[in-house]
Amino acid sequence: MPTSANKDKIILGIDPGTNFLGYGLVKVCGKEASLIALGTVDLSKLEGHDQKLKRIYERVTYLIKEYQPTECAIEAPFYGKNIQSMLKLGRAQGVAIAAAITHELEVFEYAPRKIKQSITGNGSSSKEQVAAMLQHILKFTELPRYLDATDGLAVAMCHHFQNRISVKGEKQVSGWAAFVKANPGKVVKPAGN
Amino acid sequence: MPTSANKDKIILGIDPGTNFLGYGLVKVCGKEASLIALGTVDLSKLEGHDQKLKRIYERVTYLIKEYQPTECAIEAPFYGKNIQSMLKLGRAQGVAIAAAITHELEVFEYAPRKIKQSITGNGSSSKEQVAAMLQHILKFTELPRYLDATDGLAVAMCHHFQNRISVKGEKQVSGWAAFVKANPGKVVKPAGN
Repeated sequence: MPTSANKDKIILGIDPGTNFLGYGLVKVCGKEASLIALGTVDLSKLEGHDQKLKRIYERVTYLIKEYQPTECAIEAPFYGKNIQSMLKLGRAQGVAIAAAITHELEVFEYAPRKIKQSITGNGSSSKEQVAAMLQHILKFTELPRYLDATDGLAVAMCHHFQNRISVKGEKQVSGWAAFVKANPGKVVKPAGN
Repeated sequence: MPTSANKDKIILGIDPGTNFLGYGLVKVCGKEASLIALGTVDLSKLEGHDQKLKRIYERVTYLIKEYQPTECAIEAPFYGKNIQSMLKLGRAQGVAIAAAITHELEVFEYAPRKIKQSITGNGSSSKEQVAAMLQHILKFTELPRYLDATDGLAVAMCHHFQNRISVKGEKQVSGWAAFVKANPGKVVKPAGN
């Protein structure tokens, strides 16, 4: 376990879903990243949405206390097919973000396409392709039971690569502003207030 | 300020939005409710969605520590016109819920129509009608600058009325299950997983 004397960066990557939350932790020394942990939190058997939100908060808090990450990166889709599922997803994201910011962690958000592209070079890659590339980069052999874990790890690695790019002087753009710029046709004017 | 020896119920009602969060606190002694406080948290001038989420967590935590509510009720729309705004709203709700559950408060959710109906008897009432009825019930004269405050207070009073009904033996149904039952046409099957 890292001590407070350890000045290396530790990135916690989170892919918050309503049935599984995937996470991955990497340690960054200079330009090199190494795997600390990855896993999933199974929310599918919990009854009631509030129970799921509570579990998300508890588990993210546990990960922060256990591994003492210095930064948090989160997979944040900006678009979906269905309003009810996006509201639920937004809640799961909100709770994970709350757990991070209440532990003084800065939160960085990345869209799914951006994450895939940063790992495999292709924004349309499958979960399996992302997992295989992560195995290659971080040199681990066993794949987790659910690929939500490698999805969480992918967010952490995406943030690591992004940091390396921004150090080189490229402009780092992500979040709603970038989504709106890239997808003008998908933006609907908010109703009323 | 209430002490821990005070066994009366204190309900914190929250209407979490992305520009304003409205809140109201009522003290319940037997069947009677009295006003403790109401107000808004202005998020509109904060830059960045993460700053808004952080402010929501901090302010809800402050309200819980200051007034020591025993229950929390939250306005939770289940349907909106626009996926992006629902994702943002879901995040705001998620952060408010996280603040409540991390302080051991049980969270109750009510749909906007349900709240209006419980206050005025009409689920289509305007904000002004809800505010006027709350003034009449709770006997306060000055209206807050923003009616988000009375919206927050309305959630607390809705929960109070709901409790009174359930004590009488009527079945209490709210949340997603009730929404799906009441609006079968609005439910879209989730895509993929």
